[in-house]
Amino acid sequence: MTDRYTPPDDGDAPLVRADEVHVAAKRVAGAVVRTPLLPCPWAAERGDPAGHPGAGEQQARELRLKPENLQPTGAFKLRGAYHAVASLTERQRASGVIAHSSGNHAQAVAYAAARFGAHATIVMPDATEQVKIDATRALGAEVVLVSRDRRVAAATELSVEHGYTLIPPFDDPTIIAGQGTVGREIVEDWPDVDTVLVPVSGGGLISGVAVAVKECLPHARVVGVEPELAADATESFHAGSLTSWSTEQTFRTASDGLRAASLGELPWRHIHALVDTMVTVTEEETARAQRLLATHARIVAEPSGAVTTAASLFHTAELPDTRRQVAVVSGGNVDPVRYAETLTA
Amino acid sequence: MTDRYTPPDDGDAPLVRADEVHVAAKRVAGAVVRTPLLPCPWAAERGDPAGHPGAGEQQARELRLKPENLQPTGAFKLRGAYHAVASLTERQRASGVIAHSSGNHAQAVAYAAARFGAHATIVMPDATEQVKIDATRALGAEVVLVSRDRRVAAATELSVEHGYTLIPPFDDPTIIAGQGTVGREIVEDWPDVDTVLVPVSGGGLISGVAVAVKECLPHARVVGVEPELAADATESFHAGSLTSWSTEQTFRTASDGLRAASLGELPWRHIHALVDTMVTVTEEETARAQRLLATHARIVAEPSGAVTTAASLFHTAELPDTRRQVAVVSGGNVDPVRYAETLTA
Repeated sequence: MTDRYTPPDDGDAPLVRADEVHVAAKRVAGAVVRTPLLPCPWAAERGDPAGHPGAGEQQARELRLKPENLQPTGAFKLRGAYHAVASLTERQRASGVIAHSSGNHAQAVAYAAARFGAHATIVMPDATEQVKIDATRALGAEVVLVSRDRRVAAATELSVEHGYTLIPPFDDPTIIAGQGTVGREIVEDWPDVDTVLVPVSGGGLISGVAVAVKECLPHARVVGVEPELAADATESFHAGSLTSWSTEQTFRTASDGLRAASLGELPWRHIHALVDTMVTVTEEETARAQRLLATHARIVAEPSGAVTTAASLFHTAELPDTRRQVAVVSGGNVDPVRYAETLTA
Repeated sequence: MTDRYTPPDDGDAPLVRADEVHVAAKRVAGAVVRTPLLPCPWAAERGDPAGHPGAGEQQARELRLKPENLQPTGAFKLRGAYHAVASLTERQRASGVIAHSSGNHAQAVAYAAARFGAHATIVMPDATEQVKIDATRALGAEVVLVSRDRRVAAATELSVEHGYTLIPPFDDPTIIAGQGTVGREIVEDWPDVDTVLVPVSGGGLISGVAVAVKECLPHARVVGVEPELAADATESFHAGSLTSWSTEQTFRTASDGLRAASLGELPWRHIHALVDTMVTVTEEETARAQRLLATHARIVAEPSGAVTTAASLFHTAELPDTRRQVAVVSGGNVDPVRYAETLTA
């Protein structure tokens, strides 16, 4: 299915190729956890709260989880960040790396740089929760706090001044190839999978997963999942053109990893070319999925990580003719007090 | 080191051999999750609250977790139970299996039997929490409720009456060989490991792990961990003879998987022959470890599953000269309300 890899606009950079994901898999081996697929015998019993028939009544549907929350920094982001740092020259690494992030990309870059003995600078908004600042510093990174709207500019300035290489969060072929190793492992472990559910924010994860899955299984479906309250990618998907939401809108969701107000340009072109459909979930469905993941799969999922399980369990009617689903649980970094509230709600 | 496998009393059944664990590994492959080892970069920073120097100040200690809570029934017990059911003849399976348990062994036998299409009967005390009864029934088992002191007798009677084969929880070579697959995987994934920490209740898990680890790495240490409040195995270990505690004593601990008042006879002989030392932890240390496992390793550990992490983090002085530790996180079946309380305590 080589036509899948032709970018929609010949003037732009090409889509990431499956062989680039294969190279990434070799580079990240040993540094990232080879996460297993977890069977969910409990998932077949759950119905659809919207009144659609439950999976158990309708078909023998099987759900397995890809628990990327088990990465040492608690999210899939380590794959792309590690691949990016590993792909630099020794001279580049010796000069240091920089990233701007308040979330899982910050710890991923800090961890990856530390593995190579490289200096990492992470630019964070000054309103970032102290626990995230501390976690990033504990991994050996230098944290620079700036006002929210100065993040990108500050990172660029520091990069020029000190010769740091910028590690982008998602809009980059090396990052996409690294995240694609998630999809490669899914297909290796379950060659019969027919549907892979992936959370969408900037779009790096689903882009890489789609490249890797479609190469081996051209008929398998790759489904993007977003919170209803931050559904800019779903809107873009249906409109056929890249659409942005305001951060006032996207910041309404508790899924703080999925608040990017727009897809990256390169991820958007992957999604447009390769993704089969998009599903949105409510905040309540996400919270229910977090509870079920804790009590039935015994993993801690952050809201962003639970949206795919919510889509599988509660949006059956939007995923017809699927028997073998994988839900990518993208991360598990939670505030314990808020998480405890979710568990007992 | 064949001398390690000579039982202390020649008149008794021999200890389980490493090749029996290898056979078990083949039998359970595909039915149990091949759990990864999870690095814990955060563990090196934690000190010892008793005032001993923290690991980070003293030595470069590395902790990895073996997350058996990720098994489909939430605990390592599936390995032994599946191996036992898989080892029966087809005729035996066609006649059905039976077990007595209110805990993780119940779901393990139910799940294993269902995989083979075999009928499973689980005898539970009538005071068992409804959620555990429901979970066992949801896996297709018939649950028979009896008064607590009638459990064993009722299981034996039903076994004779219906021709069911009893699947014992720990005092059995087939069960021990199945649990030993945990140790085999640890050594395969980290041939440099020098210390393996294992929770101890009836003793089946640590027996199998010790056989598997010592075969490949005779100088690696296998350390048993118990709650202070249910330390019958520790007392037996130091006395050199099998000692029982009253259930009034052992039921004081929140680690409900570790309340067995005595080791099994066969596990005791493995422990006496193969285990290097025992460590006990407090209830508070176990709760702290549960919190750290949730927020830093993003896994849900039940108290019994968290005791080994507690021993690694808070009993450094009792584990000298160790650099590369694995803590077996044996299970993750929790009541969400009680778990939420632990997370916010």
